[in-house]
Amino acid sequence: MTDEHYMNLALELAKQGEGQTGANPLVGAVVVKDGQVVGMGAHLKYGEAHAEVHAIQMAGRHAEGAVIYVTLEPCSHYGKTPPCAELIIRSGLKRVVVAAEDPNPLVSGRGISIIKRAGIEVTTGVLKEQAEELNEKFMHFMRTGLPYVTLKAAASLDGKTATHTGDSKWITSHEARLDAHKYRKNHQSILVGVGTIKADDPSLTCRLPGKVNQPVRVVLDTKLTIPLHSKVIHDQEAPTWIYTTSKADPETVRYLENEGVQVTVLDAETILVRDVLQHLAENGITSVYVEGGSTVHASFVNEGLYQQMIFYLAPKLIGGLHSPSIISGEGFQSMKDVPLLQFTTITRIGRDLKLAAKPIKE
Amino acid sequence: MTDEHYMNLALELAKQGEGQTGANPLVGAVVVKDGQVVGMGAHLKYGEAHAEVHAIQMAGRHAEGAVIYVTLEPCSHYGKTPPCAELIIRSGLKRVVVAAEDPNPLVSGRGISIIKRAGIEVTTGVLKEQAEELNEKFMHFMRTGLPYVTLKAAASLDGKTATHTGDSKWITSHEARLDAHKYRKNHQSILVGVGTIKADDPSLTCRLPGKVNQPVRVVLDTKLTIPLHSKVIHDQEAPTWIYTTSKADPETVRYLENEGVQVTVLDAETILVRDVLQHLAENGITSVYVEGGSTVHASFVNEGLYQQMIFYLAPKLIGGLHSPSIISGEGFQSMKDVPLLQFTTITRIGRDLKLAAKPIKE
Repeated sequence: MTDEHYMNLALELAKQGEGQTGANPLVGAVVVKDGQVVGMGAHLKYGEAHAEVHAIQMAGRHAEGAVIYVTLEPCSHYGKTPPCAELIIRSGLKRVVVAAEDPNPLVSGRGISIIKRAGIEVTTGVLKEQAEELNEKFMHFMRTGLPYVTLKAAASLDGKTATHTGDSKWITSHEARLDAHKYRKNHQSILVGVGTIKADDPSLTCRLPGKVNQPVRVVLDTKLTIPLHSKVIHDQEAPTWIYTTSKADPETVRYLENEGVQVTVLDAETILVRDVLQHLAENGITSVYVEGGSTVHASFVNEGLYQQMIFYLAPKLIGGLHSPSIISGEGFQSMKDVPLLQFTTITRIGRDLKLAAKPIKE
Repeated sequence: MTDEHYMNLALELAKQGEGQTGANPLVGAVVVKDGQVVGMGAHLKYGEAHAEVHAIQMAGRHAEGAVIYVTLEPCSHYGKTPPCAELIIRSGLKRVVVAAEDPNPLVSGRGISIIKRAGIEVTTGVLKEQAEELNEKFMHFMRTGLPYVTLKAAASLDGKTATHTGDSKWITSHEARLDAHKYRKNHQSILVGVGTIKADDPSLTCRLPGKVNQPVRVVLDTKLTIPLHSKVIHDQEAPTWIYTTSKADPETVRYLENEGVQVTVLDAETILVRDVLQHLAENGITSVYVEGGSTVHASFVNEGLYQQMIFYLAPKLIGGLHSPSIISGEGFQSMKDVPLLQFTTITRIGRDLKLAAKPIKE
C-alpha cells in the first residue's frame, strides 16, 4: 500500500470530527506497521486529545518502529494538551508522513524539525491539497488572522429574494433550506443584519438532528434598534453577540447585556465589517456564515471580505423593478472593477441548484 | 439490430438539417433490407425534398420489400412536394416505423392510416420522446398556433445585467457569448425592445461560421422612436420587422417602410406580446429568440408566453440597489403566483454556467 492510501484513510478519519472541534482543525492519524494498520485516531472534540495521541494509544506497543500518517503537522507547543511531536519521539515511531504543514506562520515547520532532529524520517506533502481543503477555514484563519467568511444567498433565477410586496416564503425548496442548515453546523457563527431580525424574527439555530454545537448568532445593528422581543435575545438557544456604534442608546445596551446578550459598541458611526471580523477573531471565532440581508452582503462583497459564496437558485422568475436582489448598496461602478469568482461545485438539490463559488486569488 | 437502433440513426440524420429547414420540421429516414442499411435521407432545406424521398431514392430497387424508419409521420397532403405516404406505397416497402405522429391536429394520423389501408405494416412511437424533443419548436407551433419562445438572459450571480452606471461589457465570457449565437441560428426570429437598439445598436445577426439563414429581426417599439441610423434599419443583413402602436408617427412609418423595414402598426396604445406572436405566426415565423431587455422579458414572463429560458450565469457579484436585473416591470405580487420552472440542462461554458429551464406544464 502507498503513502497516499494510508493518508486517505487518515483524511477520512479526520472528517468525522466535522462541526465538533470548534476553532480547532480536523486531524486524522493512522499508525502502520509491517503493512498492517495498528492504530487510528482523529481529533474529535475541542480541548480533548489530538489525533496522534489516539492513534498511538491504539497502537500501544506496536507503535515502536511503525510509521504514522497524520493529516496536519504534529504540534510542537504545550496548549491544552502536551506537544504531539514529543509523543511521537517517545513512542519509537521510525517514520512520520505529513500531509499539510501548520499554517500558523509562527510555528509552521517547527513540529517537523523537532521530529527530524530526533533522527526520525519525515515525508511531507502527501495529499497536501486535500488536507488543506479539509481545513480550509482553519487554514484561512491561521494565515490571515480573520475568520473564514461564507456568504449565503437564495434567489429566483432572476436574482430576486422576494416579490415587490416582500413575500419570500418560500423561494427555494424544503431540501435546499435544509441543506443550508449544514453550513450553520460547520461555521462557528451566523451573521445577519438587524433588518433580517426585524423582517423574519429568525432563531438562527442549526436544526439538524443530533447534538449540535450551536454557532454564535451575530447581529449588525448600527443604531441598536433590534426589537427587544426578538427570539435571538430571549430564546437562550445559542449565544447572541450584537455589534453597534456610538449611535446606540446606552440604556438599550444595558438592557440587552442584562438579557445575556454580548453587545460590542464600536467607536464609530458606521459598522465596518473588517472591524467586526477582527473582533470576532479575537474572541475565538474562526468562521462566519453570513445569511444577509442584502446590505450586509453588500458590505462583505465591497470589501472583498469573503472566501466562499453558497447560492441556492430556484427555477422561478419573480420579476419586478422593485423586487429586492441579493446584494444592495451601490455596487461596483464599472465591469472592470467587478472581481471574478469561480464556480467550485454545482449540485442539484430538490428542484433547485446549489452553486458554490470562490473568489479567484490574484 | 432493433427498431431503436435504426430510428436513432434516422434521428442523427434529421439533426443535420438544424437551422436549414425554416418553418419545416427536422426529419430523418433510413431504409433497411435484410439487416442492411440501403437508404438514408433527411429533410435538409425548406421547400426541397422530404427525408423519405431521399432515402427511398438512395435505396432504389432495394426499397421493394424493405423497412423504412422515419422520425415523423409521413405527410399525406400535396404541399411543396407530393405526399410521402403515396411514395412509400408505390415503392413497395413492407413496413413503416414512425417515431412521432404529425402534431398538426388537422392531419395527425392521416399519413399513417393511408399507409395502413394499403396493407403495409406500421409501427409507431419508437423513440417518440427524442423525436418530439428534436422538433420541439415545430411541435409547439403546430399544436398551439403560436411561435416557440426562448427567453435569453445573461447576468451576474446576483442577477444583474449591468452596473448602476449601465456598464455591461462584458458580464459573460467570450465562450458564453458565442454559444448564444447558436440560438440565433436555430430560431426563425430574434426579438428585442427598442431600448436594446438604443443602448447597444446591435446588428442582431448570427455570426457563426458557414452560411446561415439569418433570422428575422423583430423590434417592439410602442412609440416608434427607434434611431433611424440603427444597424437593423440600414445594414441589410437580415429582414427587420418593427411592431408599433397608434402612438407611432405615420411619417416615421413611411420612412422605415421606404428603407425596406416591415412596420406593423397594432390597433392599440400598448404592445401585447400575444398579438405580436399571433402576427409572427401568421407570417410564417415558428420560433422567437427573445434577447431582452428587461421590459420585454417582463411582458413574456407575465403572460407565461415562453417555452424555454436560456440563462448564462457569470461568477461575478455586481451588486447595487439600482443595477438592472434581467426582468423589470412589476413582477409577481405573491410567491404563490410565481410559476415554477424546471432546470433541463446545466452546462459549464468557459468560466460561466449555462442553465436551461422550462415552465412546468400544469
